[in-house]
Amino acid sequence: RINSDRLWDSLMEMAKIGPGIAGGNNRQTVTDEDGEGRHLFKRWCEAAGLEMGLDEMGTMFARREGTDPSLPPVYVGSHLDTQPTGGKYDGVLGVLGGLEVVRSLNDLGIKTKHPIVVTNWTNEEGSRFAPAMMASGVFAGVLEQADVYEHTDKQGKKFGEELERIGWKGTEKVGDRKIHAFFELHIEQGPILEDEDIDIGVVTHGQGLKWLQVTLTGKEAHTGSTPMPKRRNAGLGMARVIELVHEIAMDYQPDAVGAVGHMEVFPNSRNIIAGRTVFTIDIRSPEKEVLDAMDGRIREGIDTICDALDIQYKVEQVGAFDPVTFDAGCVKAIRDAADRLGYTHRNIVSGAGHDACWINRVAPTAMVMCPCVDGLSHNEAEEITKEWASAGADVLFHAVVETAVI
Amino acid sequence: RINSDRLWDSLMEMAKIGPGIAGGNNRQTVTDEDGEGRHLFKRWCEAAGLEMGLDEMGTMFARREGTDPSLPPVYVGSHLDTQPTGGKYDGVLGVLGGLEVVRSLNDLGIKTKHPIVVTNWTNEEGSRFAPAMMASGVFAGVLEQADVYEHTDKQGKKFGEELERIGWKGTEKVGDRKIHAFFELHIEQGPILEDEDIDIGVVTHGQGLKWLQVTLTGKEAHTGSTPMPKRRNAGLGMARVIELVHEIAMDYQPDAVGAVGHMEVFPNSRNIIAGRTVFTIDIRSPEKEVLDAMDGRIREGIDTICDALDIQYKVEQVGAFDPVTFDAGCVKAIRDAADRLGYTHRNIVSGAGHDACWINRVAPTAMVMCPCVDGLSHNEAEEITKEWASAGADVLFHAVVETAVI
Ligand SMILES: NC(=O)NCCC(=O)O
Ligand SMILES: NC(=O)NCCC(=O)O
Repeated sequence: RINSDRLWDSLMEMAKIGPGIAGGNNRQTVTDEDGEGRHLFKRWCEAAGLEMGLDEMGTMFARREGTDPSLPPVYVGSHLDTQPTGGKYDGVLGVLGGLEVVRSLNDLGIKTKHPIVVTNWTNEEGSRFAPAMMASGVFAGVLEQADVYEHTDKQGKKFGEELERIGWKGTEKVGDRKIHAFFELHIEQGPILEDEDIDIGVVTHGQGLKWLQVTLTGKEAHTGSTPMPKRRNAGLGMARVIELVHEIAMDYQPDAVGAVGHMEVFPNSRNIIAGRTVFTIDIRSPEKEVLDAMDGRIREGIDTICDALDIQYKVEQVGAFDPVTFDAGCVKAIRDAADRLGYTHRNIVSGAGHDACWINRVAPTAMVMCPCVDGLSHNEAEEITKEWASAGADVLFHAVVETAVI
Repeated sequence: RINSDRLWDSLMEMAKIGPGIAGGNNRQTVTDEDGEGRHLFKRWCEAAGLEMGLDEMGTMFARREGTDPSLPPVYVGSHLDTQPTGGKYDGVLGVLGGLEVVRSLNDLGIKTKHPIVVTNWTNEEGSRFAPAMMASGVFAGVLEQADVYEHTDKQGKKFGEELERIGWKGTEKVGDRKIHAFFELHIEQGPILEDEDIDIGVVTHGQGLKWLQVTLTGKEAHTGSTPMPKRRNAGLGMARVIELVHEIAMDYQPDAVGAVGHMEVFPNSRNIIAGRTVFTIDIRSPEKEVLDAMDGRIREGIDTICDALDIQYKVEQVGAFDPVTFDAGCVKAIRDAADRLGYTHRNIVSGAGHDACWINRVAPTAMVMCPCVDGLSHNEAEEITKEWASAGADVLFHAVVETAVI
């Protein structure tokens, strides 16, 4: 079993970097705080005898040598970046859980045949720069590095320039590594495990996602002196699209979800009818057909809404992945580990996207989940217990070691 | 008649300060740009031999002495502050039109019995700091100076501190002046005069207004892994309130208007269900009963919407004025001036709020309007012709001089 105190202490130590305002974290990707978190992780890796690699997307690869260095490594990790109002565990548990696997192997003096690489993928959250799971997406060949370098945040700063500015742009070509298997430990971010009082989620599938960024263009005009029939109100258009997305998601739930969390209004003045709005629709489903059907209905609905309000629209897909089926062998390794350790477990579908979803396209991959309080994440109040964290890390440990072979 | 070239040149000169990004202006109240605009206006006033007064709300009072200095002055003016994406004429025409009245009197060597005071009221727009018509509201005794000093902008800066910072907080007590009459020239900001090809709007009434700032509190949660029935979506709540306001306004139009132009979303991330939204409802009507009925229906509707979504709400009134009936004598002075000068004119109800609406409570007041292209304002593309501007200023000149008595 892993060292549960050490894992917890490391989680608390990392949470000191980029503190939020309500007990959580604001350590958004390629900010100074992200840089600081990376330095701490690097110091820990070096202390554990690992050798650090860094690729052009800023992804960190900390290697523990195997007895046969020619074998492809077993990768284990997640991400250290957070939402602007994020929790202390989303992503971090997977990276520091990976580090704990290696630290425990060191404690026990165990050598594995395959090398083990602990990984911190850059920009998993996608909040500052769309899309989410950016670096793993480039690694898996589904996103273009040159393209994502140009993606901008709300201040117009470019991802590539910010990565360079914080000093974490490496020289290693992205995606050149051979991966024997990849394991990711993550909090569930949903309510099922806690509700059913189950220790471990064996993640068999992941929902697919689409992010549609919509720009509506009406006409700025005075809220007082512009007659109602003369208005071309991009704010009202946005409101109707938000309702539309909700209605469509309700039609398909529980097999789908949908919401708009990001909205910008121009010029955003109390007495000006909005001339332009920009917002992102987030729709998800474990069924590709459902996702496509929702996408179609949303686009049709936007057309109808904009027609009625005499406003123009543009819909851009700024993120997308198909539903994922994880590797049967890796999934079995996780289930067997949970059984062996005596933890209760059940199969689960990931509601969120994860780096594992992309890596699954290029290497055998699976995920372990542990419960989180009230299913809450992407909230500073995100919480887990030390026992949940260590159960997850124990299962990760066994699955990794079994796959890396003693 | 006034000097039409000089008026136009001054308008164009002022528009160089705080330029917008699309040909208009961003000279929001108590910003550095506002300070610069005030300096230019002050230089012009001094060159015209006027003496500048400045009160504790930063309102500027440029006085041309009368032959009987003991008589209360005739006031003429408007505001120099603009919307964040405002036009070159909204407010500015009324201040520089007032200056042009005085310059023309100087040219003609005419002395009036009553002094004439050209006025620039602080924070008419209310975009950076609610409410609109702030300084004239304090002057008229309907707003509390100590209270509005504490009002904050989106960055949390206080109005009183910003006024002091830009160096335009005077020492004169607000509201101590005796006003014989007040005249304000303004662009219509609506389509009627242009549509009917009429030179001059004789403003008999002004719409009443309410600004209701709504705060909705739900729960931040993951857009992907939070089941639909578990969501407490403050973004969806906002969307429904925006639609509600629109529907209610449509029920009462053309006797009412309503919209939401200001919206803030927290934490505003693509994959976080909004935990909090803050936005301002703007409703207006020339009938007080209609305004009150709308207010009641909106509050009821918000309650129902929030109940269904399991979110909390707070509604604060951050601006309000009752419908206005302008002074019959001042209105007649304007109508007579238009007749005498041979301009076509019609009675009109102001759709927007104006400083004149507040001053009307403490002194005989009226307004002159000139057309604007497409009825458009609160838009950088706001436009008028030189001829429209000078017709308005001609009528203002005659009405002021007649009231100040030669
Ligand atoms: N796990 C997680 O929250 N990832 C962010 C990408 C997503 O929105 O699903
Ligand atoms: N005239 C004008 O646009 N004033 C701003 C206050 C309002 O919103 O009516």
